[in-house]
Amino acid sequence: MPSDTSQPSFVLVRPQMGENIGAAARAMWNFGLDRMRLVNPRDGWPNPKADAMASGAGRLLDEAQNFPTTDAAVADCTYVFATTARHRDLTKPAFSPEAAMKLAAEKIASGEKVAVLFGAERAGLENEDIVRANALINVPVNPEFNSLNLAQCVLLTGYEWQRQVRDITHERVEMAHTVWATQGEAEALAKHYEERLDEAGFFFPLAKANSMKINLRNMWSRMPMTRADVQMLHGMLRQMVRWKNKSE
Amino acid sequence: MPSDTSQPSFVLVRPQMGENIGAAARAMWNFGLDRMRLVNPRDGWPNPKADAMASGAGRLLDEAQNFPTTDAAVADCTYVFATTARHRDLTKPAFSPEAAMKLAAEKIASGEKVAVLFGAERAGLENEDIVRANALINVPVNPEFNSLNLAQCVLLTGYEWQRQVRDITHERVEMAHTVWATQGEAEALAKHYEERLDEAGFFFPLAKANSMKINLRNMWSRMPMTRADVQMLHGMLRQMVRWKNKSE
Repeated sequence: MPSDTSQPSFVLVRPQMGENIGAAARAMWNFGLDRMRLVNPRDGWPNPKADAMASGAGRLLDEAQNFPTTDAAVADCTYVFATTARHRDLTKPAFSPEAAMKLAAEKIASGEKVAVLFGAERAGLENEDIVRANALINVPVNPEFNSLNLAQCVLLTGYEWQRQVRDITHERVEMAHTVWATQGEAEALAKHYEERLDEAGFFFPLAKANSMKINLRNMWSRMPMTRADVQMLHGMLRQMVRWKNKSE
Repeated sequence: MPSDTSQPSFVLVRPQMGENIGAAARAMWNFGLDRMRLVNPRDGWPNPKADAMASGAGRLLDEAQNFPTTDAAVADCTYVFATTARHRDLTKPAFSPEAAMKLAAEKIASGEKVAVLFGAERAGLENEDIVRANALINVPVNPEFNSLNLAQCVLLTGYEWQRQVRDITHERVEMAHTVWATQGEAEALAKHYEERLDEAGFFFPLAKANSMKINLRNMWSRMPMTRADVQMLHGMLRQMVRWKNKSE
């Protein structure tokens, strides 16, 4: 069963190798996209090579609809994007993947049906497909080098779709069985080190001792320490003292 | 010769198949990245299979530096990201690709040297590599399905690097040998149609004629017409009139 999230259909137009159809299915499902449509795949449909490649995303192929023409594939859609690398000598709006998927998300949120056309491996989309699209998507690649294959083009478009619709956490800290140290814990640690290092004769010469202590305090405050870090640092220092005591 | 743009190094740690190293090189060069470093590739270095796959991006492999350990590979760097899919049970900041490449761009702009570690195909990075990194990059994939391979992970990270540093045009219109029609030209077109359609008896019944004309005017104003479109639309109408005149 297709997922119940509103999303664009990705339409592979005359894809050639089954492996690439399978790889495109995997690329889609990485980003929660599972509405694949096909236009006249070269080697027929279904295709065992596509199934073999799609491992884990095979459901998308089982559910993929196969159409004889691009017209038929997008007949129920209100807005159609065509992905293309080359300039096509057609007057047509062209979007970055980011802007295109933002527009797609807006249109889908207001009830429209959106499709994205992807061309065959080597040649890309033909002009007769592109004239049917309302807008182009150009992936901004190195002008000296564009080697994006079908699955990679699907991947980047799917990635942008997800960036537009999912609430992505851009920065967090993975915490492994611990919490951040409190200021009080950090302060106790700083004191512990300062006292033992003082005993050990670290703050020398005397004229510099104060600024050395300030630098040390400042270093502790710069470090994002967890409670586990603080405990480990206390333990390290205690062990050094024990070691020194044993050797006396 | 490496390009002279400031950029992060991408470090492939213990990559296995040469084909994947070649594919990673292509993925990088799509987005103008050409500083590849390797840590101890399984099948030695150089690797003819990598060269065969890299077609067009082979220079990156020729210039890639090969190091015996991750430590050696990032010894000259001031900030190191590690890409990882799984939670690693280590306390560590984790960024989206977007936030990570934004931070990388800021650091590089202020003179820092930044590296991004990518793990081997199947297993990803080992914890011993990850503890050496300052932060993680997690690609936000479908929690039910993550099938990103090495080159795809490199591709998405490279794509985000480029999004942060390149001035991307998000929307433009490709113009094929034409310019946008002026308001005057659109107005003349609207008049032409209104007059001929009036002659043809289109605005019927009379009580509705005015609102029909308003709707027609409004339709023209919604259409983003080029000068070529306007000329074609004039020509279509003239031809209809000629056709009608012939049949009289």
